[in-house]
Amino acid sequence: MNPEQLQKLMEAVREGMVSPEEACGRLKTLPFEDLGFAKVDHHRSLRTGMPEVIYAKGKTSNQVARIFLSLTASGVNVLATRATREQYEAVKQVEPRAEFHEIAACITLNQKGDPTQTGIIGVVCAGTSDLPVAEEAAVTAELMGNRVERIVDVGVAGLHRLLSQHSRLQEASVLIVCAGMEGALPSVVGGLVGVPVIAVPTSVGYGASFSGLAALLGMLNSCSPNVTVVNIDNGFGAAYVATLINRRQSS
Amino acid sequence: MNPEQLQKLMEAVREGMVSPEEACGRLKTLPFEDLGFAKVDHHRSLRTGMPEVIYAKGKTSNQVARIFLSLTASGVNVLATRATREQYEAVKQVEPRAEFHEIAACITLNQKGDPTQTGIIGVVCAGTSDLPVAEEAAVTAELMGNRVERIVDVGVAGLHRLLSQHSRLQEASVLIVCAGMEGALPSVVGGLVGVPVIAVPTSVGYGASFSGLAALLGMLNSCSPNVTVVNIDNGFGAAYVATLINRRQSS
Amino acid sequence: MNPEQLQKLMEAVREGMVSPEEACGRLKTLPFEDLGFAKVDHHRSLRTGMPEVIYAKGKTSNQVARIFLSLTASGVNVLATRATREQYEAVKQVEPRAEFHEIAACITLNQKGDPTQTGIIGVVCAGTSDLPVAEEAAVTAELMGNRVERIVDVGVAGLHRLLSQHSRLQEASVLIVCAGMEGALPSVVGGLVGVPVIAVPTSVGYGASFSGLAALLGMLNSCSPNVTVVNIDNGFGAAYVATLINRRQSS
Amino acid sequence: MNPEQLQKLMEAVREGMVSPEEACGRLKTLPFEDLGFAKVDHHRSLRTGMPEVIYAKGKTSNQVARIFLSLTASGVNVLATRATREQYEAVKQVEPRAEFHEIAACITLNQKGDPTQTGIIGVVCAGTSDLPVAEEAAVTAELMGNRVERIVDVGVAGLHRLLSQHSRLQEASVLIVCAGMEGALPSVVGGLVGVPVIAVPTSVGYGASFSGLAALLGMLNSCSPNVTVVNIDNGFGAAYVATLINRRQSS
Amino acid sequence: MNPEQLQKLMEAVREGMVSPEEACGRLKTLPFEDLGFAKVDHHRSLRTGMPEVIYAKGKTSNQVARIFLSLTASGVNVLATRATREQYEAVKQVEPRAEFHEIAACITLNQKGDPTQTGIIGVVCAGTSDLPVAEEAAVTAELMGNRVERIVDVGVAGLHRLLSQHSRLQEASVLIVCAGMEGALPSVVGGLVGVPVIAVPTSVGYGASFSGLAALLGMLNSCSPNVTVVNIDNGFGAAYVATLINRRQSS
Amino acid sequence: MNPEQLQKLMEAVREGMVSPEEACGRLKTLPFEDLGFAKVDHHRSLRTGMPEVIYAKGKTSNQVARIFLSLTASGVNVLATRATREQYEAVKQVEPRAEFHEIAACITLNQKGDPTQTGIIGVVCAGTSDLPVAEEAAVTAELMGNRVERIVDVGVAGLHRLLSQHSRLQEASVLIVCAGMEGALPSVVGGLVGVPVIAVPTSVGYGASFSGLAALLGMLNSCSPNVTVVNIDNGFGAAYVATLINRRQSS
Amino acid sequence: MNPEQLQKLMEAVREGMVSPEEACGRLKTLPFEDLGFAKVDHHRSLRTGMPEVIYAKGKTSNQVARIFLSLTASGVNVLATRATREQYEAVKQVEPRAEFHEIAACITLNQKGDPTQTGIIGVVCAGTSDLPVAEEAAVTAELMGNRVERIVDVGVAGLHRLLSQHSRLQEASVLIVCAGMEGALPSVVGGLVGVPVIAVPTSVGYGASFSGLAALLGMLNSCSPNVTVVNIDNGFGAAYVATLINRRQSS
Amino acid sequence: MNPEQLQKLMEAVREGMVSPEEACGRLKTLPFEDLGFAKVDHHRSLRTGMPEVIYAKGKTSNQVARIFLSLTASGVNVLATRATREQYEAVKQVEPRAEFHEIAACITLNQKGDPTQTGIIGVVCAGTSDLPVAEEAAVTAELMGNRVERIVDVGVAGLHRLLSQHSRLQEASVLIVCAGMEGALPSVVGGLVGVPVIAVPTSVGYGASFSGLAALLGMLNSCSPNVTVVNIDNGFGAAYVATLINRRQSS
Repeated sequence: MNPEQLQKLMEAVREGMVSPEEACGRLKTLPFEDLGFAKVDHHRSLRTGMPEVIYAKGKTSNQVARIFLSLTASGVNVLATRATREQYEAVKQVEPRAEFHEIAACITLNQKGDPTQTGIIGVVCAGTSDLPVAEEAAVTAELMGNRVERIVDVGVAGLHRLLSQHSRLQEASVLIVCAGMEGALPSVVGGLVGVPVIAVPTSVGYGASFSGLAALLGMLNSCSPNVTVVNIDNGFGAAYVATLINRRQSS
Repeated sequence: MNPEQLQKLMEAVREGMVSPEEACGRLKTLPFEDLGFAKVDHHRSLRTGMPEVIYAKGKTSNQVARIFLSLTASGVNVLATRATREQYEAVKQVEPRAEFHEIAACITLNQKGDPTQTGIIGVVCAGTSDLPVAEEAAVTAELMGNRVERIVDVGVAGLHRLLSQHSRLQEASVLIVCAGMEGALPSVVGGLVGVPVIAVPTSVGYGASFSGLAALLGMLNSCSPNVTVVNIDNGFGAAYVATLINRRQSS
Repeated sequence: MNPEQLQKLMEAVREGMVSPEEACGRLKTLPFEDLGFAKVDHHRSLRTGMPEVIYAKGKTSNQVARIFLSLTASGVNVLATRATREQYEAVKQVEPRAEFHEIAACITLNQKGDPTQTGIIGVVCAGTSDLPVAEEAAVTAELMGNRVERIVDVGVAGLHRLLSQHSRLQEASVLIVCAGMEGALPSVVGGLVGVPVIAVPTSVGYGASFSGLAALLGMLNSCSPNVTVVNIDNGFGAAYVATLINRRQSS
Repeated sequence: MNPEQLQKLMEAVREGMVSPEEACGRLKTLPFEDLGFAKVDHHRSLRTGMPEVIYAKGKTSNQVARIFLSLTASGVNVLATRATREQYEAVKQVEPRAEFHEIAACITLNQKGDPTQTGIIGVVCAGTSDLPVAEEAAVTAELMGNRVERIVDVGVAGLHRLLSQHSRLQEASVLIVCAGMEGALPSVVGGLVGVPVIAVPTSVGYGASFSGLAALLGMLNSCSPNVTVVNIDNGFGAAYVATLINRRQSS
Repeated sequence: MNPEQLQKLMEAVREGMVSPEEACGRLKTLPFEDLGFAKVDHHRSLRTGMPEVIYAKGKTSNQVARIFLSLTASGVNVLATRATREQYEAVKQVEPRAEFHEIAACITLNQKGDPTQTGIIGVVCAGTSDLPVAEEAAVTAELMGNRVERIVDVGVAGLHRLLSQHSRLQEASVLIVCAGMEGALPSVVGGLVGVPVIAVPTSVGYGASFSGLAALLGMLNSCSPNVTVVNIDNGFGAAYVATLINRRQSS
Repeated sequence: MNPEQLQKLMEAVREGMVSPEEACGRLKTLPFEDLGFAKVDHHRSLRTGMPEVIYAKGKTSNQVARIFLSLTASGVNVLATRATREQYEAVKQVEPRAEFHEIAACITLNQKGDPTQTGIIGVVCAGTSDLPVAEEAAVTAELMGNRVERIVDVGVAGLHRLLSQHSRLQEASVLIVCAGMEGALPSVVGGLVGVPVIAVPTSVGYGASFSGLAALLGMLNSCSPNVTVVNIDNGFGAAYVATLINRRQSS
Repeated sequence: MNPEQLQKLMEAVREGMVSPEEACGRLKTLPFEDLGFAKVDHHRSLRTGMPEVIYAKGKTSNQVARIFLSLTASGVNVLATRATREQYEAVKQVEPRAEFHEIAACITLNQKGDPTQTGIIGVVCAGTSDLPVAEEAAVTAELMGNRVERIVDVGVAGLHRLLSQHSRLQEASVLIVCAGMEGALPSVVGGLVGVPVIAVPTSVGYGASFSGLAALLGMLNSCSPNVTVVNIDNGFGAAYVATLINRRQSS
Repeated sequence: MNPEQLQKLMEAVREGMVSPEEACGRLKTLPFEDLGFAKVDHHRSLRTGMPEVIYAKGKTSNQVARIFLSLTASGVNVLATRATREQYEAVKQVEPRAEFHEIAACITLNQKGDPTQTGIIGVVCAGTSDLPVAEEAAVTAELMGNRVERIVDVGVAGLHRLLSQHSRLQEASVLIVCAGMEGALPSVVGGLVGVPVIAVPTSVGYGASFSGLAALLGMLNSCSPNVTVVNIDNGFGAAYVATLINRRQSS
């Protein structure tokens, strides 16, 4: 029951075509979405600027291509994360404008053009092994309309490199900091800036890193109070929240 | 060495009072903060509106009172978390304006008056057992100059109560959601709103809740992409980040 | 807005007192519970026979007594779990009919009389140390209107005692099996009967029992396919589900 | 020693062919099953309507086919779980009536025809990645003679979709709810219905989901008291217990 | 039904007082223990030389005394583990012959006199902090009729002390080795002897010992193949098994 | 320096060929084994009847064959565990008498003939999936000179099968019980017999079995006091200790 | 048997007082330490400068005093760790020269005077809550004859304070870095210096710090290769190793 | 800005070419490393004798070869750890002097010749399965200019082999001890020597070794106070720290 139908029901009541009792019965049992409770559907409200997203891992190339194509129709940006080159080739067949980001393992289609946010999202990581997660975050953030600054190779064991990027860190409206091993980078970066830091533990490491658990625990116990944490390797989620924060500032 | 001193040194060089070699020597070895690298000292930049904070747990009443008093001098707000009534009595002796928040276990001194942020921070929790953490977040956020809305008694097992608060949830600029046991509330709330949700796992529960571990893992694996997580029972940290986010929107 | 109010609104529409547009507006925005969506409020549907419940742990005697009294008003049974004798004394002051179950640590008020379910819930445990959890389950089940059979002292290391209770086990419509240490009892009992077995790990044990974790994992890995598991020490929850199952059979 | 043999022994005693002493000796030492203790053999009592089951994982196609064939002889339904298409092809060679359920990874042979239970088992899951576990539960439940309703794509981050299925949820006699990641769905569903909910954590997720541990812990700590839990990915076990519960109602 | 009753039943059959059919019926349904299945009751078979045991922890002094007294009646030895001096005082009131072992936290009553096993059980531990567990094992083993040799203060970080006890180690028929911290002692001792070594991890240690987990894991991974493990702090269980092994040798 | 050499040195001292000082020097510095401290070399003392053992996993077929051959020289039995058929083929090339045990994944060479122990080692397991571990134990025990009884398919969910093997269980001098999933079998078996039970957790299971952790914890917390535990899947170790225990009895 | 005795034995052999056979017998069976194998007794070799140590936790004041007194006899320094003021008062009664270090919870007796090592051990920690562990390390190191520099209040979230101590960090021969929460400080310090860094995780923190586990894992995964780790809160152990390293440099 | 540039700037100020204000501006904003803060760049200070290092795992053969070549330019030694033979072949194409260490999985280029440290680093391990980690440590230590002694096949279950290496152990300035399974070797070795012992847990083992966790916990809880620990399998890190310690002694 959409608003028009509701309006008609009320008119029918007024005109005596439907009794009040009958109207009560219908109103109580109809499915919620039919009430036009658009506010329940957060997707619609969020979609302004947010891409449609496919989690490509475990899907066949065919499936990814088919879903990708169907999502392009609405004119929004489309993003496939954890994608392989093989999946990309299949997508490209049906949507030649799609681009592949090798390190980020992302397929993107940008139908909405240039960044619309004026604030900058800084994406920080220590070394080359954290790059896939950092790039997933960066590519996602760009497709969501943000200006993105990448600051890499700034591990805590070589502070001078991190400090030399101090001014770039301070220009960002929000920072995404990816780190594996001991996961100390977000704490150190958090101490250098006055904006929210979203920490992404990566599964990089061996032995007692326990696939990112060490980094995760480290970040949750950060002594910098401006740090929050997302799941291990969740570059996408970090970019999503960073976009919401950045969007506020820019509007 | 502050900017004035640096200026004087340079003038002394120009005037020949200090040789270039001697100036080089001094510049290389002086402590960083003396260089006037204000940007390194994030505390100063953050302090506009941020209270001075004391972690009262494990400190004697005397210590808390002494530290509290010393922090009031600079005119900023002061906050003591994890405080007992006994500690408060000691503080009150030296600073009669201090207030005690029983459930939040916080002592506050508000020297800066009414909220300065126009955005609202919503603090959400399911039941009475999560209240101490939620109140720590709410009291902290208020002292940091935010308008705060408390939305309690909205557990996921009684959706109608949560849904009846839908419009209040949507008015917030950022939400802090505290939950123990299975920690599902942030996911559900995250799906209802389009703003960042900061999830705070609480140590409420028994058995396989493992002192908040179950809630923590649940939140890290949230299927709502706008959720980030802080440490178990860390209401203070959640309020800190929420303030940074709210501040952006309001400015 | 309860059903009567909804009825009145519809009548007002029919009578032209309220325009259809205005009625649409009110219907869309009113809180869900006001719509009389009784189906959303599962509590009501479940309450037929279900007691009102207070989790007494961490509450003052005063609080328990006050809540207890308020719940008696509706005429349903009332149950306080994890209660102390001291809390009971306070309750007794305001509600002399309340009873205390020492081992179960429960306070009950039975306002609804004898069992209404004809099926039997069997509550099984191995030894005296599991008794508090088993009794919490048994007392809860009784207050929910079930006939309860207690079968104790039947550990897996003395099969003859368990086997001698075989016919009693088979008379039950559903079984609650509490066990600490290795938690093997539900698997063995599950193999002896053809009804659902609800396994309750208890925190009984020491060393590598890790406060019930060993029993919990054992039960989750049960080789008897009729076993499901609830949280450690959760006798109440087991009784709740057992009641739902028993009720089906009996109706 | 079957009942006939026992009868003969007793007759031999009466006729003086066997002395009482000798009879005592034989009775004490004979194997239990020979005593005709049918009640110990729960399998027989359960088999009315329960399929014979093969855990196909780790078995060769040949082994699966051979076991499958042998089980069909007794005329009951046969189920192979965690089966591959290759194993199915082998089974089909020897039993052409066997069917393969791709997503459920199950091979079934239905020799007993249509559902015999009038109650409905609802099988609920959030997304496509939980489908294999949900389908294992659904296919198993159907083969055990239940009417099954599948309710998919109803994650907690999009409540409107779940709420729109409210009436279908309420028609079920028992619900199986499969969820990975934070495992919050059973709690939310549990709050919407008044029947037992069997929660199945799935190993879906990454990072801190720790192969289903996060979902498992979440479900064990559910704030809905009508939730019990089975092992991670154990769709079969959930269907087994749900059948026992459903059977009670229908009889 | 004890053997005499069975004998009588058979005689009644022979004499025609009971029909064979009736005898069959009784035999099928009577409780197992009534059949005189003494072999099912392992307690009886084990009791030759085994004390009756009370786990005193969590019991009142009164309870311990009452149970203790009741067990003395049968003339066997009696052992209360994890007992306090207060509990002992209560026991002594009712059974003056009872003895208290302070370090072992055991109350014993020896009604059967001197060791009956000729083999020696060696009880080994590294330092004073492991002594309570080692003494529980030693006192238990003595009460079970074994000759016991205590070999203490032989940690792996001071091999010379351990090696100086080499001949004593080799005289034992079975060794109980208690160790906390890294739990390495059983491996080293296991390499020095050719008899079974029962390793008892103790909860001694701090930090990453995790209340005995480190020692437990170490012992389970022992590179000496003659090592088996019991639960953390389970001196009693170690002595029990050691007695069974020693008994074999001596008989 | 072997005993003969020591004897010669002493004689040389007596005869004045070697001065006391020189003798002291030699005695202090010579390697321990040269002193003829045979007691330190437990291998020798244990080898009577113990096979030489190769852990084949991770070794090339060539390596296994070469080591295997070298060990046959001394005339003792030889055992390779965790071996593949491919490795066996390589061994067979160089030692045609070697045998392969498919399920146990063991290669054996029996050069010492029939069992020398009169006692029986019972090897018990629940189902086919635990067979590889049980067979490793059984094959090892046989090669170590024991008579071995295999008792399989006796899971705790079907007690009648286990009970029907009661007399066979009681004939064993020591029992090895292998179980995965909840690991309850050793507790139940332990309650039926009066001999030592060596429990072997297997990595069989899925989900919350965590590769044998659930079974391991269950066994460590066994309520049967005659149970000790070895590492997950360690059939070899169980057989080794069982042999030591059995040997005692038989001698 | 000390060297003199060995010498005498050899002389007795030479003189014919003891036969070679008898000498062989004695040599084979005598306890190792009697052989004068001083090298096995590492304690002696280490004691030059190392204090005698008492782990006071769990000991009575009386016990601590008595042990303390007995250790002073040999003239070495004496250290009691994890000591209370009450224990100190008891020690002071018997040894008035003993000193108490409140924060370190250590009792010391320095009988050997000023530092003998010329190298400096730097003891670094972030905040006041890590001080007890840091002080245990510092007091221990001083008593072991080292010069100690304390560098406190240098957390990673305020890099400027750490960097301002850069030159002091670089003057140390070895650094002990204590940190709780995320445990990032050793990595950052490790990157600033070229000497070994001994990391001590502290149990400071709450929630997901899991009593120091987060810090421990962080330190084990340090990206600075000059970091090694000791047990949680093990300030004593860190000082012990640091002394060994410092001693090398100074000699 | 290097020292020369700073010198020139100061001269320009003196000569009036640059105003003091302009100089202040430049000094405040220039990147840290440009200030010539050589002390911040620890790499330079450490590089004397330290090789350049590549973590080869996860890199293509091409990448390894290209990076390797670029690092050889500066004339220092070059080390690639966790390398495959295939990667080595690629390196050899571009740098024929490179050597491959099969067991250590390391590629090395020694451009600096013979050991420069006079002290010895002992590398100890128990068996062949720990050899890869031990060899990584040994090869690394050699390339860093140390004399290295390998002491293998000295497990704690065969003490005589370890004790026969006693004098070699005592000749080392620092010891690296690698062990899997129970990880007891460092404790035992630590008790035999008076120098620092760096313990390296290896992931060798199965079942409850949990990929090295058992060994790691064992080492952290070592009762030998001269033991510190690095990450699981981190032979490189152990060699790095050992070199720093050895270097001190030798200088």
